[in-house]
Amino acid sequence: MALVNEHYLKLSDNYLFEDIAKKVNAFRLSHPKVRVISLGIGDVTRPLCPAVTEAMHRAVDEMASAATFRGYGPEHGYDFLREAIVKNDFIPRGVRPDLDEIFVNDGAKSDTGNIGEIVRWDNSIGVTDPIYPVYIDSNVMCGRAGTLSDGRWSNVNYMPCTAENNFIPQIPDHRVDMIYLCYPNNPTGTVLSKSELRRWVDYALENDTLLLFDAAYEAYIQDDDIPHSIYEIKGARKVAIEFRSYSKTAGFTGVRCGYTVIPKEVTAATLDNKRRIELNRLWSRRQSTKFNGTSYISQRAAEAIYSPEGKKQIRETIAYYMDNAAYMLNALKGAGLEVYGGRNAPYIWMKTPGGTPSRKFFEQMLYATGVVCTPGAGFGPSGEGYVRLTAFGNSEDCHEAMERITAWAGN
Amino acid sequence: MALVNEHYLKLSDNYLFEDIAKKVNAFRLSHPKVRVISLGIGDVTRPLCPAVTEAMHRAVDEMASAATFRGYGPEHGYDFLREAIVKNDFIPRGVRPDLDEIFVNDGAKSDTGNIGEIVRWDNSIGVTDPIYPVYIDSNVMCGRAGTLSDGRWSNVNYMPCTAENNFIPQIPDHRVDMIYLCYPNNPTGTVLSKSELRRWVDYALENDTLLLFDAAYEAYIQDDDIPHSIYEIKGARKVAIEFRSYSKTAGFTGVRCGYTVIPKEVTAATLDNKRRIELNRLWSRRQSTKFNGTSYISQRAAEAIYSPEGKKQIRETIAYYMDNAAYMLNALKGAGLEVYGGRNAPYIWMKTPGGTPSRKFFEQMLYATGVVCTPGAGFGPSGEGYVRLTAFGNSEDCHEAMERITAWAGN
Repeated sequence: MALVNEHYLKLSDNYLFEDIAKKVNAFRLSHPKVRVISLGIGDVTRPLCPAVTEAMHRAVDEMASAATFRGYGPEHGYDFLREAIVKNDFIPRGVRPDLDEIFVNDGAKSDTGNIGEIVRWDNSIGVTDPIYPVYIDSNVMCGRAGTLSDGRWSNVNYMPCTAENNFIPQIPDHRVDMIYLCYPNNPTGTVLSKSELRRWVDYALENDTLLLFDAAYEAYIQDDDIPHSIYEIKGARKVAIEFRSYSKTAGFTGVRCGYTVIPKEVTAATLDNKRRIELNRLWSRRQSTKFNGTSYISQRAAEAIYSPEGKKQIRETIAYYMDNAAYMLNALKGAGLEVYGGRNAPYIWMKTPGGTPSRKFFEQMLYATGVVCTPGAGFGPSGEGYVRLTAFGNSEDCHEAMERITAWAGN
Repeated sequence: MALVNEHYLKLSDNYLFEDIAKKVNAFRLSHPKVRVISLGIGDVTRPLCPAVTEAMHRAVDEMASAATFRGYGPEHGYDFLREAIVKNDFIPRGVRPDLDEIFVNDGAKSDTGNIGEIVRWDNSIGVTDPIYPVYIDSNVMCGRAGTLSDGRWSNVNYMPCTAENNFIPQIPDHRVDMIYLCYPNNPTGTVLSKSELRRWVDYALENDTLLLFDAAYEAYIQDDDIPHSIYEIKGARKVAIEFRSYSKTAGFTGVRCGYTVIPKEVTAATLDNKRRIELNRLWSRRQSTKFNGTSYISQRAAEAIYSPEGKKQIRETIAYYMDNAAYMLNALKGAGLEVYGGRNAPYIWMKTPGGTPSRKFFEQMLYATGVVCTPGAGFGPSGEGYVRLTAFGNSEDCHEAMERITAWAGN
């Protein structure tokens, strides 16, 4: 009979957010009169901006006529979008990737989840802790994470980020093959300055480490000294793959478009250490074989973000969310709660009062206030004692949620 | 340093169709005056039907307003689409999958490529030969295919389908863990009758074999006795995963939507043979972790196919392509060429005259007529001596291509 991939059996049945959704549903059923406000899952709520929806209507019209119909697109994305990416996301920051170093995808989750396929299953990995669960779970699935014991995977180097170290991860004192970094960070909402990120690139260059840099939240950066792309750091082209997403940049969580950058200088070695293989080439082969490009309409939508109107409109939406974040930080601090992040990212990371375990606090707050957060323990061992609140709600909900939480916290 | 997944290095650099595109480009550059007609890659050319584009416009409008905006959808697809699938694709054929047995995706290529992740890397596999290259290539990438020697992979059981056996694959005389079947078949355009498919299901039940049934072309079936779904065969729910696609059904190659059916009865075993694990559950976990659903607009587009107007309109488009196929079969036969398929599928499988190797014939025909086909050898060892022609062109091009080919073949 076919044998199952037993690594899957090491995982809990549900992905973190499925699990939370089930608990929230149970609460709704038992409290039908409470209007639940979700600051849990990191999903946007503002509509797509007009520049984007106009582009999508035009693209749909093109698909309705034989003369302008588009079938399969290039697996790695249309050049109109790849050119807009290079011109707008990179050249202004002094970075010049080649077009064929840009791989357009259906969102960063797919690529951060699948990227591990092109390297050996037994490379060691490192993650800042807490972290987006996809990095760990996808490595569990192929056996790379090893075995679980006391909430930690045996082949994963955890780099704690907590209030104690000001959320700045310590660089490992030994070599790690692959390290995931996500900045601005999900879930803590914290950032790394240019000089701090440089230390990681230098470490990677010295140790021949592959950096997997997830910049899904770069559009939320407000401060000047925070790098938007890892390639702003000298030498990063040799060691880093970067993931970008339009999900949070432009409200594309239901539209599905993002991209991955793999410079041709990034390589990995054969086991006999005789050859260095370009990961760009391998990823290209992977995508040509297992992916057929993302929707033409979604790619035209993404292109429209880079138009002058599109840029202005998405800036307004981001400002809306960041106003929420500022309001939340202020309200929660005013209520005596310890909060972090929220300045260059749409996430607020809140210490649970009195060190309440995060899953317990999640339920307490849900049942006391009807407001949903995400328990920090779901993001890794160092997330224990924290919860994540997102600034993606509409502002009325966000204000009401703060009223409920601060009234409750004040009791 | 990070170590590369060396299984990738066993593959040629380019996926089959990338390779052909490069050769065609070279021809275009050296023959700028020839109007190239492509009957090569299996891509549609007719526009999306009005029911679909109207639904897409409505969906875009929903995304433009805060009250109707949709962010992340369910990773496994919206229920409105899953319900339409069950009601229209299955119930009329006496099949009743549960909603959570349907996984909406961004196209069959992704899922046929990724499905192997949830089973062990060392299961043995079987394929009808010739076959869609994704089945083989994706198994090479994880090591399951073994090593290549004389154009054959060591851990792959090839089941030849040629004119000699009337394109009916012989059932293996030993147990194979997983077998890929694609009917109506890409590339040969041939089909299996219900009684022939039943033999495969019976084999799978007896041998505890997992069947991976790709029904991407079911909408092209004209004859009554040909099953549209493997679940029309008794017992198939215990052994088969089925892949469906809207790409060819409704011209969605640029829209990206399809689905996979995994009945809960389908299981695979742990190595110690003590437990049977539901593959539905594992795939659900895989998709929640590495996929974020396909575009809302694409899912509304797919739903519209099942409306009365949508059904009528896509039938017209399919009839258009099948008229091409009939014309092609007739013209090529008239020119004395040996052709197969094309009756219940949009593909015609043509024997190369005098046994010319298929890659050589591809180039000969391209340079003599400006018409592109796909060399059969690209689909596997038993594809040698054949080429694939697709009926997806517009009818004028298709007629002109036949004129050019028959004039050339007549010389």
